[in-house]
Amino acid sequence: MIIVMKKGASKKEIEKVSKHIEKLGYQTHPIVGVERTVIGAVGDKDKERLKALITMAGVENVMPVLQPYKIASRSVKKHDTVVQVGKIKIGGKKNFAVMAGPCAVETKDQTLKIAEKVKAEGAQLLRGGAFKPRTSPYSFQGLEEKGLKILAEARKKTGLKIVTELMSVEHAKVVAKYADVIQIGARNMQNFSLLKVVGELNKPILLKRGHAATLEELLMSAEYILSRGNYNVILCERGIRTFEKAYRNTLDLNAIPALKQMTHLPVIVDPSHGTGRKDLILPMAKAAIAAGADGLMIEVHTHPEEAYSDGPQSLTPKEFAHLMNEIKPFLQAAGKEII
Amino acid sequence: MIIVMKKGASKKEIEKVSKHIEKLGYQTHPIVGVERTVIGAVGDKDKERLKALITMAGVENVMPVLQPYKIASRSVKKHDTVVQVGKIKIGGKKNFAVMAGPCAVETKDQTLKIAEKVKAEGAQLLRGGAFKPRTSPYSFQGLEEKGLKILAEARKKTGLKIVTELMSVEHAKVVAKYADVIQIGARNMQNFSLLKVVGELNKPILLKRGHAATLEELLMSAEYILSRGNYNVILCERGIRTFEKAYRNTLDLNAIPALKQMTHLPVIVDPSHGTGRKDLILPMAKAAIAAGADGLMIEVHTHPEEAYSDGPQSLTPKEFAHLMNEIKPFLQAAGKEII
Amino acid sequence: MIIVMKKGASKKEIEKVSKHIEKLGYQTHPIVGVERTVIGAVGDKDKERLKALITMAGVENVMPVLQPYKIASRSVKKHDTVVQVGKIKIGGKKNFAVMAGPCAVETKDQTLKIAEKVKAEGAQLLRGGAFKPRTSPYSFQGLEEKGLKILAEARKKTGLKIVTELMSVEHAKVVAKYADVIQIGARNMQNFSLLKVVGELNKPILLKRGHAATLEELLMSAEYILSRGNYNVILCERGIRTFEKAYRNTLDLNAIPALKQMTHLPVIVDPSHGTGRKDLILPMAKAAIAAGADGLMIEVHTHPEEAYSDGPQSLTPKEFAHLMNEIKPFLQAAGKEII
Amino acid sequence: MIIVMKKGASKKEIEKVSKHIEKLGYQTHPIVGVERTVIGAVGDKDKERLKALITMAGVENVMPVLQPYKIASRSVKKHDTVVQVGKIKIGGKKNFAVMAGPCAVETKDQTLKIAEKVKAEGAQLLRGGAFKPRTSPYSFQGLEEKGLKILAEARKKTGLKIVTELMSVEHAKVVAKYADVIQIGARNMQNFSLLKVVGELNKPILLKRGHAATLEELLMSAEYILSRGNYNVILCERGIRTFEKAYRNTLDLNAIPALKQMTHLPVIVDPSHGTGRKDLILPMAKAAIAAGADGLMIEVHTHPEEAYSDGPQSLTPKEFAHLMNEIKPFLQAAGKEII
Repeated sequence: MIIVMKKGASKKEIEKVSKHIEKLGYQTHPIVGVERTVIGAVGDKDKERLKALITMAGVENVMPVLQPYKIASRSVKKHDTVVQVGKIKIGGKKNFAVMAGPCAVETKDQTLKIAEKVKAEGAQLLRGGAFKPRTSPYSFQGLEEKGLKILAEARKKTGLKIVTELMSVEHAKVVAKYADVIQIGARNMQNFSLLKVVGELNKPILLKRGHAATLEELLMSAEYILSRGNYNVILCERGIRTFEKAYRNTLDLNAIPALKQMTHLPVIVDPSHGTGRKDLILPMAKAAIAAGADGLMIEVHTHPEEAYSDGPQSLTPKEFAHLMNEIKPFLQAAGKEII
Repeated sequence: MIIVMKKGASKKEIEKVSKHIEKLGYQTHPIVGVERTVIGAVGDKDKERLKALITMAGVENVMPVLQPYKIASRSVKKHDTVVQVGKIKIGGKKNFAVMAGPCAVETKDQTLKIAEKVKAEGAQLLRGGAFKPRTSPYSFQGLEEKGLKILAEARKKTGLKIVTELMSVEHAKVVAKYADVIQIGARNMQNFSLLKVVGELNKPILLKRGHAATLEELLMSAEYILSRGNYNVILCERGIRTFEKAYRNTLDLNAIPALKQMTHLPVIVDPSHGTGRKDLILPMAKAAIAAGADGLMIEVHTHPEEAYSDGPQSLTPKEFAHLMNEIKPFLQAAGKEII
Repeated sequence: MIIVMKKGASKKEIEKVSKHIEKLGYQTHPIVGVERTVIGAVGDKDKERLKALITMAGVENVMPVLQPYKIASRSVKKHDTVVQVGKIKIGGKKNFAVMAGPCAVETKDQTLKIAEKVKAEGAQLLRGGAFKPRTSPYSFQGLEEKGLKILAEARKKTGLKIVTELMSVEHAKVVAKYADVIQIGARNMQNFSLLKVVGELNKPILLKRGHAATLEELLMSAEYILSRGNYNVILCERGIRTFEKAYRNTLDLNAIPALKQMTHLPVIVDPSHGTGRKDLILPMAKAAIAAGADGLMIEVHTHPEEAYSDGPQSLTPKEFAHLMNEIKPFLQAAGKEII
Repeated sequence: MIIVMKKGASKKEIEKVSKHIEKLGYQTHPIVGVERTVIGAVGDKDKERLKALITMAGVENVMPVLQPYKIASRSVKKHDTVVQVGKIKIGGKKNFAVMAGPCAVETKDQTLKIAEKVKAEGAQLLRGGAFKPRTSPYSFQGLEEKGLKILAEARKKTGLKIVTELMSVEHAKVVAKYADVIQIGARNMQNFSLLKVVGELNKPILLKRGHAATLEELLMSAEYILSRGNYNVILCERGIRTFEKAYRNTLDLNAIPALKQMTHLPVIVDPSHGTGRKDLILPMAKAAIAAGADGLMIEVHTHPEEAYSDGPQSLTPKEFAHLMNEIKPFLQAAGKEII
């Protein structure tokens, strides 16, 4: 931590701050500048509490030097983490994963049809929600366990692995029973109780970035899971909230190369939620690949205009087939392969 | 809903869209403009599903006309909701409530001391977290039930009512046992499972606005609680996330008069989290009163520089006493009274 | 500047960086931490160029310690700057200024009528645009010098001082000829050519914060004016751009107390543009006073529904009279007076 | 325009609004819904003024149906605009343009060296600022005409076309004398006086998106130029301002496919300013190509650590050469070619 003293801070104030730093277990290194004094605090204690030094007389600013995440950090583990789901590999130089399916499991018939279609076009995982986080209490809330069973049946029929969302601690067991990958949605990225629970499961976790979460916060949420012993975490960029109204969300592709520097965890992209507009899914999917993503998550529905949710951002199976074809040269350019 | 057709949409496309609207149970009212056709959809079904019309050929835009919240709406209930906590009234023309206390319950001694101090200065409710949502898994996570017991003891000693946060469904019972008002934190504003649970409790709920939640979303989260039968919901503005780095959050006081028009629910303000800077708490507390707030929530700690969390935004008891004195003329100007 | 080296940066890299810092004219103060080395750069040269050190091998981060503004800084001048416009004082503990008038000067009749009305209710300055920055090239662009002459006539009739916007360098002379206070609009806050020109005028400048400008950037723009010798700068908060759609802009009242700490310059608030909604003007005007503002700028129009621009955020004279009456107790509570 | 009346608006209010709409020259089409009445206003007058209807009694909302830009609109001109700069083509299905060079022209030697290097690697245009918009008045402000002459010399030596920024109306002539493409910087995107002036020049204009400008606003600024008769406008995405602190700006690649639907104008991307981090330039350049960009603008400096400005986001010539090589397969995948 760097503690910046105010211009004109008294000797006494500087001493008092230094003593307090030492009392908290750090060494102090003062730098006397032209205008003001700066104190470096060196030690390996929890740095968080040093932030409160800002309340002491004469202190202007307290600036952290170190990243707060540890296990998630690329500086701790150089090599890419590869999350294995059956034979599918997510992460690493060459692997590329495609997850596709409806926003919500609506009916058995709908889900099986979509599963077959996306399987035929090369998707490896089926996405679909049985528990749905809906802004309105009056909207469809999901089929719950019945939906999970339908997903399991789709897996049986197609061989696709299942990605599905867990919304609450009390459903952890039932979701873990059916899912191959458990999704933590954007709205729950800082539901720390939920993160603790999935940190103790033996299942890959797909952690979506909150729509106003910094990359550092995303990694701190991953750290909750990693620090409990579950190392199979996949990060997912799915759009942030900005002033722009032309799209429902602003897909932030900068996050991919930036995260790749900060962490060894795989990073996938959801251009469906990320933009909220079906006409932007294809170009942004290509761009995600070019930016270095490890996979894509795409919403597909046989009848988007009748979907219970997310119709505006769902591709038809035909449009999805087109996408799978169109991204090929970009995967090749990126040296990536869907296995 | 207003469905805007594209310039040059064909007659056939317009007909197909109209038929689909009618199939979903609405009447259609086309308006043929100079450049394009617009279709009004009239009916009392769930409007959400009409949004998917955007995927049909020839449709340019789908614009909602009605607000999605109902029970929370001022148009449904004209009179201010007054939430009663013992003798304390939150909401209504003249009532003003002050909640104060530490970010976290750290020790019995700390909590009791702070409780006595804030009581002496006129606070009516004691705030303090026993379950703490912390960005880092390595930070202090709260004393849990032990902390709740300390709060109960503070209530016994001082008569202050207790506001404390519930973070997860599985702690609903224990928190409800000790709390007078249950707080849903900003990070859990869209934890819909949690909202459903507190919607069935017989306790006032303090619902904090998420740091990137629109006012409409805040009211939709309130609607989750109200629609389950719990009408005692207090809304709380606590700062939003913007590009500005001079404060940790940007306290959005516009929300107060805007919410007052949208809803009958009381609105309080938390200038401690709302700014993240203790030097901004007093002026923003005054401004919140002037903007029409029904109450304040203030972080107070006997030793901010040693607080386990939120030290940078905690007032000392002496500073809190100063605040309580300084806000008096503004309360009077606003016609409000702390009873 | 604090230069943070990467974890595992080599001795050679640290030396190379240190030498480069010294070459640029600074002393170096290394702090060897548990995980990494940090170098303090001490000296009184332009710090800006040190930022490029980030490109050197082994450097992780470069963190500025000092504020980049100088003349605008409160640490350079403790006492509040009071800008004098005739007998009106803007800034200082007790003074409060009210500027009111139409968005645009539309006709002589309209302007004179509004001027008389706002004068009668206690406004001291008349606002009104003769050069209008309009998003659309097809919208009314202002009456230019004809409009300035109308404003001058309104001044003659009412005694109100004139605030009007300068949009471009080539109109500096003509605007300065008629205006008592020259407004630099939000969109031109970083039009540095314009700032340089008004820095050499002998007229008070009202500098509006850009809708996505940080407070530091606002002060740097003020610094452009101050550094050219014009010390009569009034800052104006007028709403920032956020994700929230309930208001056109989000009026950021946090800026008032934060700016008051950073600078000695007066700070006024424009709740008309700041919110874009006439129903929010009154509560936010009260809140601005409570937060410590030195004045208000309010849009008033005799027929808002027929205004050429900004109709949605204009008060009628009757509503303005109500506002002037309603803010009185808040001015008193704040110890401020309109003289 | 769609005028939404309040729930419970009286018959008289609805009539009064309808009459006012008709008075302004539109036909009215009322739709009586279950909860409220909606009025469609049909006509080809300037819609802007209808917004002020929001101030009339009983009106809840006024929603525009049409886009406000006309000449810039894809619905007016289906085919891509191709801007020709000498033999270079910017825009259209297959063309791809690369602009590279230093942030600022610092010295003749520096500029010529960089020009030769970027030419050798395949750039077609040389970027470099002679007039520099700097946040601080104490930073290097550019060499002005001397800088323009150096650029002209570089053109003569290398054959590269020159892109350089115009900051103020009074320099329009001198900049037009030397530049092949005139850049309007992000901070001047809504400097309407400047837009009017360049709208009357016979030179291609590179219009950068403001860091908080919506796509609609960007197109309205383009419309200023187009409506004056200059049809050679190139749009440039260069990063927007969000809450994220990991990058200086958030490059918004969604803008590319979204703009391509809205307009026929070419869209290029500046990943140097767009991210502010040199390590993100390459991946975001690839992603920009994949998303459909018509060109790139890249900052290159022989000694980034000594650059007068933008050092942190400048590539060395060697790094630029690497970039030019790495983007090749992505250009091929996108069916684009640098000619």
